[in-house]
Amino acid sequence: MNIAIMGFGVVGSGVAEVFTKNHEMIAEKSLHAPFELKYILDIRDFPDSPYADKMIKDFNLILEDETVGIVVETMGGLHPAYEFVSSLLKAGKSVVTSNKELVAEKGCELLATAKENGVNFLFEASVGGGVPIIRPITQCLAANDISEVAGILNGTTNFILTKMIRENMELADALKLAQKLGYAEKDPTADLDGIDASRKICILASLCFGKHVSPDSVHTEGIRSITLRDVAYAGNAGMVIKLLGAAKKTADGRVLISVSPCLIDQHSQLAGVSDVFNAILVRGDAIGDVVFYGRGAGKLPTASAVVADVIDSAKHTERRRIFGWTDSEPGYVADCAAVPGRFYVRGTMTDGSGAGTATAGMKSVKVLFAENAPADEAAFLVNAPSETWLRKTLQTVGIADPVIMKVTDY
Amino acid sequence: MNIAIMGFGVVGSGVAEVFTKNHEMIAEKSLHAPFELKYILDIRDFPDSPYADKMIKDFNLILEDETVGIVVETMGGLHPAYEFVSSLLKAGKSVVTSNKELVAEKGCELLATAKENGVNFLFEASVGGGVPIIRPITQCLAANDISEVAGILNGTTNFILTKMIRENMELADALKLAQKLGYAEKDPTADLDGIDASRKICILASLCFGKHVSPDSVHTEGIRSITLRDVAYAGNAGMVIKLLGAAKKTADGRVLISVSPCLIDQHSQLAGVSDVFNAILVRGDAIGDVVFYGRGAGKLPTASAVVADVIDSAKHTERRRIFGWTDSEPGYVADCAAVPGRFYVRGTMTDGSGAGTATAGMKSVKVLFAENAPADEAAFLVNAPSETWLRKTLQTVGIADPVIMKVTDY
Repeated sequence: MNIAIMGFGVVGSGVAEVFTKNHEMIAEKSLHAPFELKYILDIRDFPDSPYADKMIKDFNLILEDETVGIVVETMGGLHPAYEFVSSLLKAGKSVVTSNKELVAEKGCELLATAKENGVNFLFEASVGGGVPIIRPITQCLAANDISEVAGILNGTTNFILTKMIRENMELADALKLAQKLGYAEKDPTADLDGIDASRKICILASLCFGKHVSPDSVHTEGIRSITLRDVAYAGNAGMVIKLLGAAKKTADGRVLISVSPCLIDQHSQLAGVSDVFNAILVRGDAIGDVVFYGRGAGKLPTASAVVADVIDSAKHTERRRIFGWTDSEPGYVADCAAVPGRFYVRGTMTDGSGAGTATAGMKSVKVLFAENAPADEAAFLVNAPSETWLRKTLQTVGIADPVIMKVTDY
Repeated sequence: MNIAIMGFGVVGSGVAEVFTKNHEMIAEKSLHAPFELKYILDIRDFPDSPYADKMIKDFNLILEDETVGIVVETMGGLHPAYEFVSSLLKAGKSVVTSNKELVAEKGCELLATAKENGVNFLFEASVGGGVPIIRPITQCLAANDISEVAGILNGTTNFILTKMIRENMELADALKLAQKLGYAEKDPTADLDGIDASRKICILASLCFGKHVSPDSVHTEGIRSITLRDVAYAGNAGMVIKLLGAAKKTADGRVLISVSPCLIDQHSQLAGVSDVFNAILVRGDAIGDVVFYGRGAGKLPTASAVVADVIDSAKHTERRRIFGWTDSEPGYVADCAAVPGRFYVRGTMTDGSGAGTATAGMKSVKVLFAENAPADEAAFLVNAPSETWLRKTLQTVGIADPVIMKVTDY
């Protein structure tokens, strides 16, 4: 049996490298005759690559080659990745992907296609890069009823927040540094605005709770509005700010799902996750909280997750690895702004007064302090029946344009 | 197919509870006709248990019952667990165990017996309680060449160290509190002296590096000699003290393995692991460092790991889950005291002078300070070609009975 790689970018070239370097070990672990890397599909030319003889531009060569049993998709993007993967599964080939957009948008359908055709569709690398998470959720935590899953799912924003928290660096400067180090794209929108994280929390929520959640139904906020004073106020509360993707089952069988900057206790296991590292917390009825931590991106970590899936797929050629989720009904995603919680508020008093006036009549208030804060700025933690209620109330007491963040119990 | 439980203690009763509570979900996930809990073997009587009708005292009932396909061993101890498990595997029954002593001492042999008889021998719960670790190592990290594995493997000692670090509590008082809360046994020897942790690091090392390591070949130190001043000195260096089990491959294909209190950087992911939580770090060539974190003990977390293994075993009745390790040759375990490293030293100058005299001529020294330290006490970090060399040198410069701990790079 041979394998093919579609997309020779960072991850695809990493897969070729790991596959070649650990070739014997991989064959041994997959309990299989050694399988060979036969094709690498890419529209670009790589004349100087050690894999130049495997480079092709015609997808049909892979589709029609009966000796190719497993195809690695590392092209990224929805099209033509979706059409290619769908055709491959229908042709009886297993597919391993690192493409989070593909899985978040089309995972439900592609898993069903794989099932119909008796092949595997695996995507460990789509969430958390090299961090093992998909397989532990489906297998190791199988005896648990999972109630929540949450995590630091985007390395770029976590790097920026770490620089803000530990080195008092302004967000704009931290972003420039991240770009210089290759941790952020020239256009950092997908990272900074939480789009990347929202795809990943969709995949995790779909997997943990069994019903598909589409990224466009996720309440998504990025980190652009966070200032060093927010960081200081959070520190005053014994907390740190992290961009969290979080999904939680509701009592009536729906899901609360969001990506937003949150305050977490400084002693929390998620608080210590720094730089480009990712961490995912799973809360189960029997297990309590477990956390999986590691490099959420990068060539070799992601490639190693892809290759582990290839090994697993090769081991299960006769017996598929079965997991998946179903479509969700309309209204499955509940309104995040309608649930009670504890919140961080920072805003300017329109009448020039301070936090004392702002919080009059509110419950469980903890006023926060930061050096050099203007006298008319109010910052505090407060319990509220909902974020909607809180926004209205803040308007009433005269706080203009408040920054509101959830305080988590992770 | 039916299952049986041997040993109705904390973990065994938890298995019965998780199995009963999540019965339907478990059957669904194991792709199997619902299987039933048929027997619970224990020498004690449990007349008031909801499982009273399943209680038996004769092991042969299980061994000879052809309807029992999977047996859960939660008796603990080496005998008769070893004899029972060996007989069951030979009789063609799969065994799932939480018994770390059994796996550490007899794992190699029992895995071979399972292989010969075409059944499973699974032990996810033997390390890290509910924390998924055995399966992620064997599957998710399969594309990696693992170079090191290390972790906080004992919840009792981690609870005690956490109280010392965060609340300045004396070790003896923290131990009493742990006993009061049920985190420590009346006889805390196995925890405090590192014996429990040494069994777990043996299992991890055997699994990661492919050759059996017996607990009696592990350099094992406990936490009894650690004082609050050590904690303070470590804090002065920006570090915390944790009891780590650690195993590392050497360039010549051997293994360095130890259980000992170590200094780790306060920003390390392991530093934030507090109370009874466990965390295991795996270092692979492709993935870098990954950390698995969660409750390392307790009824339901451990039971959930056992039941996940039962599900996995039921799914793989036709196709065994294959992994294991071979016997090791004499001399496989290298001498921990002979390798270079960075060390923490605390001792009393026999001539009454301080750290300045003590470290004269040593390299890369960082002298440490703590409040209320006696004038003749020296504490410092130092690089040394080996611990053996360091001990000799300390004797030469006149430091009596030094406390020495490794400084790790985790």
